[in-house]
Amino acid sequence: MSMRVLGVDPGLRNMGWGVIEVDGSRISHVANGICHTAAGDLAARLLSLHAQLTGVVAQYAPDTAAVEQTFVNKDAVATLKLGQARAIALLVPAQAGLEVGEYAPNAVKKTVVGVGHADKRQIDHMVRLQLPGVRIAGPDAADALAIALCHAHHAQTAGRLAAAVRRAS
Amino acid sequence: MSMRVLGVDPGLRNMGWGVIEVDGSRISHVANGICHTAAGDLAARLLSLHAQLTGVVAQYAPDTAAVEQTFVNKDAVATLKLGQARAIALLVPAQAGLEVGEYAPNAVKKTVVGVGHADKRQIDHMVRLQLPGVRIAGPDAADALAIALCHAHHAQTAGRLAAAVRRAS
Repeated sequence: MSMRVLGVDPGLRNMGWGVIEVDGSRISHVANGICHTAAGDLAARLLSLHAQLTGVVAQYAPDTAAVEQTFVNKDAVATLKLGQARAIALLVPAQAGLEVGEYAPNAVKKTVVGVGHADKRQIDHMVRLQLPGVRIAGPDAADALAIALCHAHHAQTAGRLAAAVRRAS
Repeated sequence: MSMRVLGVDPGLRNMGWGVIEVDGSRISHVANGICHTAAGDLAARLLSLHAQLTGVVAQYAPDTAAVEQTFVNKDAVATLKLGQARAIALLVPAQAGLEVGEYAPNAVKKTVVGVGHADKRQIDHMVRLQLPGVRIAGPDAADALAIALCHAHHAQTAGRLAAAVRRAS
């Protein structure tokens, strides 16, 4: 039974997304891209992000989704912007009836690269290793694919645990 | 020609809303309330806020909307939460095709109370004075009505200016 996983790396200017398919132990790339908005009216930007991401969900019909937990930093204005973009990243899959996983950036790195403090280049490298032949739309799309891989890994682990519990009981 | 104005005071737990009607120099209350979400899964809370506020827009059919600009404070986690709620407050009217005004809290207070540092009680009082007989669902709804009043005032001023420019030219 295969499962499609959507990963989203939230951002107001560039929102990366990636869809992978998990079939038992086989993982394959489906699509990735970036929802982009230009500077301007905030409501219009959120509306555009919502429409673009809704289009992605409609086109690729994921079964589950995951969004990176926002890195809260000292720049409150940037934190606020990211929060607003992140709301769209959470809302759109929820509107499609999907459960939405949330992972801290370090958890994503630890799962995909093996260490919590990997840089962008390492993430890009490991995503390409795990999804041979993938063409990546940009760093935000690579991060989104990494989030999808992280979610798939955690879902598989949870599934194996559930299966082991069923066997043992 | 009358105009309905929606004001929204964004919050993840309590999102206040208020609708007023402006007809020339006459302003009247239409409705106010609070969209509430209980603690829990963030995506589910945003989905619920989106559905509740979409219901308000569908029921009261405002012509224009305004949202309070978020107060960026030192608590980054609170700022992030507010940003996420605020995205819903901006998105929903934008999805209905409305322009969405944004006003800083001090601008709202200055317009409605006359000073930029009014407390909640003063806002509540002035909202009641300007909307006689109103029953207010709570402090967040009072703030939302104040935002709607602020937006109506600015729109009227802008309209008078535009009319004066037309007459002068």
